[in-house]
Amino acid sequence: MVTRTRLIRALQRQSRPRAAFGASLPRAAVLPAATRCFATSHPRLIAPTPVYNIAKLTSETYPEIKRDAKFTQLTEEHVAYFRELLGGESAIIDGVSKDAQDDILMFNEDWMHKYRGQARLVVKPKSTEEVSKILKYCNDNLLAVVPQGGNTGLVGGSVPVFDEVVISMARMNEIESFDQVSGSLVLGAGCVLEVADQYLAERGYIFPLDLGAKGSCHVGGNVATNAGGLRLLRYGSLHGSVLGMEAVLPDGTIMDDLCTLRKNNTGYDLKQLFIGAEGTIGIITKLCIQCPQRSPAVNVAFLGIESYEKAQQAFREAKGQLSEILSAFELMDGLSQELVHRAKGETMPLEGSFPFYCLIETSGSNSEHDYEKLEKFLEDVMGKEVVADGVVAQDATQIKSLWAWRESVPEVSAHWGGVYKYDVSIPLADMYSIVPDVNERLAEAGLLGDSDEYPVLGCVGYGHMGDSNLHLNVVVRRYDKAVERVLEPYVYEWIEKRKGSISAEHGLGLAKKNYIQYSRNETMIGLMKQIKQLYDPNGIMNPYKYL
Amino acid sequence: MVTRTRLIRALQRQSRPRAAFGASLPRAAVLPAATRCFATSHPRLIAPTPVYNIAKLTSETYPEIKRDAKFTQLTEEHVAYFRELLGGESAIIDGVSKDAQDDILMFNEDWMHKYRGQARLVVKPKSTEEVSKILKYCNDNLLAVVPQGGNTGLVGGSVPVFDEVVISMARMNEIESFDQVSGSLVLGAGCVLEVADQYLAERGYIFPLDLGAKGSCHVGGNVATNAGGLRLLRYGSLHGSVLGMEAVLPDGTIMDDLCTLRKNNTGYDLKQLFIGAEGTIGIITKLCIQCPQRSPAVNVAFLGIESYEKAQQAFREAKGQLSEILSAFELMDGLSQELVHRAKGETMPLEGSFPFYCLIETSGSNSEHDYEKLEKFLEDVMGKEVVADGVVAQDATQIKSLWAWRESVPEVSAHWGGVYKYDVSIPLADMYSIVPDVNERLAEAGLLGDSDEYPVLGCVGYGHMGDSNLHLNVVVRRYDKAVERVLEPYVYEWIEKRKGSISAEHGLGLAKKNYIQYSRNETMIGLMKQIKQLYDPNGIMNPYKYL
Repeated sequence: MVTRTRLIRALQRQSRPRAAFGASLPRAAVLPAATRCFATSHPRLIAPTPVYNIAKLTSETYPEIKRDAKFTQLTEEHVAYFRELLGGESAIIDGVSKDAQDDILMFNEDWMHKYRGQARLVVKPKSTEEVSKILKYCNDNLLAVVPQGGNTGLVGGSVPVFDEVVISMARMNEIESFDQVSGSLVLGAGCVLEVADQYLAERGYIFPLDLGAKGSCHVGGNVATNAGGLRLLRYGSLHGSVLGMEAVLPDGTIMDDLCTLRKNNTGYDLKQLFIGAEGTIGIITKLCIQCPQRSPAVNVAFLGIESYEKAQQAFREAKGQLSEILSAFELMDGLSQELVHRAKGETMPLEGSFPFYCLIETSGSNSEHDYEKLEKFLEDVMGKEVVADGVVAQDATQIKSLWAWRESVPEVSAHWGGVYKYDVSIPLADMYSIVPDVNERLAEAGLLGDSDEYPVLGCVGYGHMGDSNLHLNVVVRRYDKAVERVLEPYVYEWIEKRKGSISAEHGLGLAKKNYIQYSRNETMIGLMKQIKQLYDPNGIMNPYKYL
Repeated sequence: MVTRTRLIRALQRQSRPRAAFGASLPRAAVLPAATRCFATSHPRLIAPTPVYNIAKLTSETYPEIKRDAKFTQLTEEHVAYFRELLGGESAIIDGVSKDAQDDILMFNEDWMHKYRGQARLVVKPKSTEEVSKILKYCNDNLLAVVPQGGNTGLVGGSVPVFDEVVISMARMNEIESFDQVSGSLVLGAGCVLEVADQYLAERGYIFPLDLGAKGSCHVGGNVATNAGGLRLLRYGSLHGSVLGMEAVLPDGTIMDDLCTLRKNNTGYDLKQLFIGAEGTIGIITKLCIQCPQRSPAVNVAFLGIESYEKAQQAFREAKGQLSEILSAFELMDGLSQELVHRAKGETMPLEGSFPFYCLIETSGSNSEHDYEKLEKFLEDVMGKEVVADGVVAQDATQIKSLWAWRESVPEVSAHWGGVYKYDVSIPLADMYSIVPDVNERLAEAGLLGDSDEYPVLGCVGYGHMGDSNLHLNVVVRRYDKAVERVLEPYVYEWIEKRKGSISAEHGLGLAKKNYIQYSRNETMIGLMKQIKQLYDPNGIMNPYKYL
């Protein structure tokens, strides 16, 4: 039998001796070259107090976006209709009849404090029929709407721009049924991802999607944005996992395609259009998801790697050697980990500093087999000096701690005042080079530096290497149009040249509405507009965004 | 180390002694009750000579379908245009200027000899631009067309009904590129599935779809019909595996969405509409497919099972215990195996006769680990008497032989003159009971019997248990409207009552055009018709079918 001690010994044999992960380690004084652009001497970098400023109104940040005059202004009469329809007080937040801006703020503003709308009404339907009546009424009366899930999006897609009515799906959160043999789960769009996954965990299954925001995001929002997340590598895209869907079209039509079977070839698969449509052609109300068996054996290794070339090599080896048990292969650059360390004050998993780190997760049905495969893989990549150092989690707590190092990056990136986030797919060979390129460009423009006069602190890159999906985060002290002008369209042009995608898994929202042409040609955009016109001829659904 | 001998011993310990698979075994004289409805005394059942009659014209079989008068009749002028456009003689088969019915027959008739159209022209484009010009010309001139791949379909979808122009994709069969790191494969729609898979095998990858017709079917046809096949259980649906697509719309517009990345959330995922659209809104010309690593270790077990209840139990156990290495779980009833034996004259894998057989395949990266898991599973299910008997293939030849027993069923079902095929999804608990129900109904109607006066020999059931997908084959001596009337809409009503799907993986084609309402409600059908109208307002694409 392979023991975990053996693996640790093996790692130690091939690397320098080090304490087990979690123990207090001395910090290396100097960061490697790749991370130096991010000034270590800045006091707020060393022990940052997160800076949260209420977002500027989107209409002020983007003065070129004008409210569409065709949309009706909300009146008390409209509010009365919704109150009558939805009943109880908890079902609407009325900022029309009275001042309720404080209560509405969380529906108006995104979590990055980058976008803020001016909605005066939030409705919270409890049933598909209520959603249908709300949409029909809004469509008939030309009231623009924004469907909202957990509001964890990164592109301003889930908050209003002007006075759109927010339709919060939070109350449609029931788990309706689960088939213990087939693994098909039927649930309301407003169900929180982590709640669904916990329900499945108790039954030996797993939700085929996982992401940092799981504690807040709704499964409906996940599907509406075609979220990818941490385990797409293993469980594939939502286009494959969503078996059935119920959605409401803008005119109130209920599209009942809530199939619970894996195979159903009877006509056009219309639900696919709603996966990734970001609430622009209808509202997803219920879903049926194909859930895989939960693996009883999970291992996580955290590796330090000397170059991006070696990180690619480690990925190729992991794919080949870990094959069916590989469930995540995450890349983080040195700076991203430095940020987490500085923001959280916790000891880093590895003793030395490296320009790149990888988190590898395996999930399987037999822990001995999996550990043996992982051990062999690690011995191989350390023997070949592809990997410079590494730790393997010894228990569930350590697994959680290692994942926390990966999952904290998006959150801590915003600690210094703001963050410009780019979520891109780039063929693997070129993937990381966008990070130093953007850094250099910001430095050249005189926007990046150590003191408060510079808006930009630096760029970090991390993401799902297994899916060629990089998150480029430009960490800033404040949002600044000058920074935006340096970044855009530069970043998008960079992606276009490499035939990448300007939005890998986060969607277009407001942020990328004007940049879709970098990833889609004119014909495709024209065909997409046909679909929008077909389903939402009045344009009431999530206006000013997407296309 | 676990050896294969140990597993065989383990099986023998718990079952009666038996010779290794492949050796000549005495046949049990009496079949178990479930298979008796199929008369063993019938001489043509014992040693059938396949009966191939040229199909009746579809227009005669379905006199209620009338040629749409809006479509133009082909003239020599049209033919001249295509000849000029496509150049060389091999690019068209011209049955307008001269008699070429023999050459065109294989494009007019389906392989089951059930449908036969009256096309007089076959065009074989070599490039996307040629497809575009062909479609634009046909659309402008109101010439109806039928896109055709390998013509291996089961629902009459790929052959003309009247004089539609056949657009054969056979010459667009190039493999364009393969990314050895990401596994993304770009290829022409006319590439034969087995050719693509062989190309991938040489590079350590596998096509994420496999099916009996792999030697003839085209990948474009697979995607156009959203084929499911033998390993959907492991690799998921084509909606998840197709990363990119190039397709030509009826008006000649080229939809270039040939993305090679796993993640690309930039607008509506239009290519999804073409997956399963059966050539009714455009022609798929190129594809990019996400291909998984090929597993070096493959094991196949063939099990005899005493009841359908126990087959379900075996599936649940296999899912739990074999988990990430389970790559197929196929069900066959006793009669289906009896048919293969009688048609092929080969010895059955197991000594005794059983009402049900399962084929289980595992695929993984470590043969010892996989074998250990399989051994443990088999010991467990035989110990619990869930499985009565079983063999495990000892080498690649035996793996092939065992798969042949499964894959021969569809083919041999047609040996006696014809076969009515139903490809359905039904929740697992009820799945098999449709077979005895239909058998009984045919017997009651006096249509099932031992002699030539009865059109029906019997019904067999087999399929992809892992996907709740049953193939119900009604084996007949000849096609007969009386049989069809007993079967339809009875079978569809049966499925509807159990919330199943009337077309799991074969599509609608001509066969099920009039039955879609058993699986889709009126609203859904209306929304589908909108899509058809949007993309193909003249209705030239694969008319008389689908919706």
